[in-house]
Amino acid sequence: MNHSFIALQARYSQRVNHQLTQSLATISPSILKEAMSYSLLAGGKRIRPFLVYAVGQMFGCSLDKLDAPACAIEAIHTYSLIHDDLPAMDNDDLRRGMPTCHIKFDEATAILAGDALQTYAFSLIAQAPELPDSSKLAMIKELTQASGVFGMCLGQSLDLQSEHKTITIEELKYIHINKTGALINAAVNLGLFAADESALKYQSALKNYAESIGLAFQIQDDILDVIGDKNIMGKNQGADEQLAKNTYTSLIGLDASVEACQQLYTQAIEALDKIPYNSEALRQLADFIITRNS
Amino acid sequence: MNHSFIALQARYSQRVNHQLTQSLATISPSILKEAMSYSLLAGGKRIRPFLVYAVGQMFGCSLDKLDAPACAIEAIHTYSLIHDDLPAMDNDDLRRGMPTCHIKFDEATAILAGDALQTYAFSLIAQAPELPDSSKLAMIKELTQASGVFGMCLGQSLDLQSEHKTITIEELKYIHINKTGALINAAVNLGLFAADESALKYQSALKNYAESIGLAFQIQDDILDVIGDKNIMGKNQGADEQLAKNTYTSLIGLDASVEACQQLYTQAIEALDKIPYNSEALRQLADFIITRNS
Repeated sequence: MNHSFIALQARYSQRVNHQLTQSLATISPSILKEAMSYSLLAGGKRIRPFLVYAVGQMFGCSLDKLDAPACAIEAIHTYSLIHDDLPAMDNDDLRRGMPTCHIKFDEATAILAGDALQTYAFSLIAQAPELPDSSKLAMIKELTQASGVFGMCLGQSLDLQSEHKTITIEELKYIHINKTGALINAAVNLGLFAADESALKYQSALKNYAESIGLAFQIQDDILDVIGDKNIMGKNQGADEQLAKNTYTSLIGLDASVEACQQLYTQAIEALDKIPYNSEALRQLADFIITRNS
Repeated sequence: MNHSFIALQARYSQRVNHQLTQSLATISPSILKEAMSYSLLAGGKRIRPFLVYAVGQMFGCSLDKLDAPACAIEAIHTYSLIHDDLPAMDNDDLRRGMPTCHIKFDEATAILAGDALQTYAFSLIAQAPELPDSSKLAMIKELTQASGVFGMCLGQSLDLQSEHKTITIEELKYIHINKTGALINAAVNLGLFAADESALKYQSALKNYAESIGLAFQIQDDILDVIGDKNIMGKNQGADEQLAKNTYTSLIGLDASVEACQQLYTQAIEALDKIPYNSEALRQLADFIITRNS
């Protein structure tokens, strides 16, 4: 593992955690707030905030301007995890090494905590003191396109419908692009929208990068579900097989999945090569995604 | 029942239904889209869109500018109904005279349809062609404050926690102010934010109006749960008692509840008297709220 990446990931994670903690502190005490905070501050790799910060900084944007979108996208991601873990969905009792929200609290509270975290994400951007109105609206549009019926929720719905059915690798790819890829791509765009307008000419290269690492991330998830260690992963290994989920490994096998991951990594690096800025942090993130063991 | 109110309510309802139908038509077919459309177009009184349109028009705002916020607030309201009806929450199988979303589809789809409708609400405002950026952001802020951990979700969470416990009438009022009142107040503000800035000086009078009719609406709901007709209401009568919910009627009795409703109506009308514009539509809505039988 690359030491400078670990240090940078720690720095960005600490920053987003600090910002989220400060922001949550303004909410009056309630069970609902407790549940939101429990899941939002439960750790995790903070890959989406990493992307917001790294892309923004690559284009010379100050960290202050990136805090609100970094917190917002993590709030969206966390709400989706809380709802995905519910008994009616993936029925998981372990997440990031801790009881899932509905186990720690109860199902109703978990549903509401997810709902309120989604709302919270949009409020963080709408109220960000450091951003002009046009950037805020571009970010809100991006998040709505990526996380609702045009992105994440659609992907999750299709994923659930594909259980106990055999689908093609192209159908699986479409599910992943929506379920995980859309929000990864949104993270990159949030960083971009906080930066100077001149950075927008690299949006298409960044999209290629985001799509490649987004899909690679999901394939690596499928690989880890087969070969991973529950104690390292902080969630139950073999869960996909139990739910009769379609995965890259079940459709094309382990070796071909590892190879597909490698190909996507190469595509991601080639996309970065088209951007004449220091993209070392993004390259290291791509490395991390295909070599991670949790 | 006042005929001009019925005609106006029909006109506003038709308008918001038409706008929602047109907007939903741009989404590619999927089960998720079906579930969203099913609940969003299931009818209902459209009181929140009515408030957006009526307040905006009172201040001379064109209907075009009011469409996006009217649709958005109905999408937020509908998402909350879908989630409130879930087995883990109020466990209702009938809503607006039709099977609830999780009965018609399944629980996972209902959770996701609610999630995606919330996202959709924010996207409608962010993408509204008729509004300046500053109005859009004011509306998004208002909706986030009213519907998340500072408003509707908090109210619903407190409501669920109060089941099988005896609470005071003040605690019940606090629940209602958050659970229903916050979004009613937001509807009024959305109409206001679409209008000319000079209208903002009446925000406080409109807040008094909205708070009064919001609470009156909820008390009338409690009254109808005791004396209402299931066939007229389109939902199961007596549901609150089955869930051992605290209601105005259970805490202060039927007669005092009717009286409280009347007092709130008077307060609402007094608030409108402070606004030197034609507030007839809002007065008629207050009438409707305390005389409705469904």
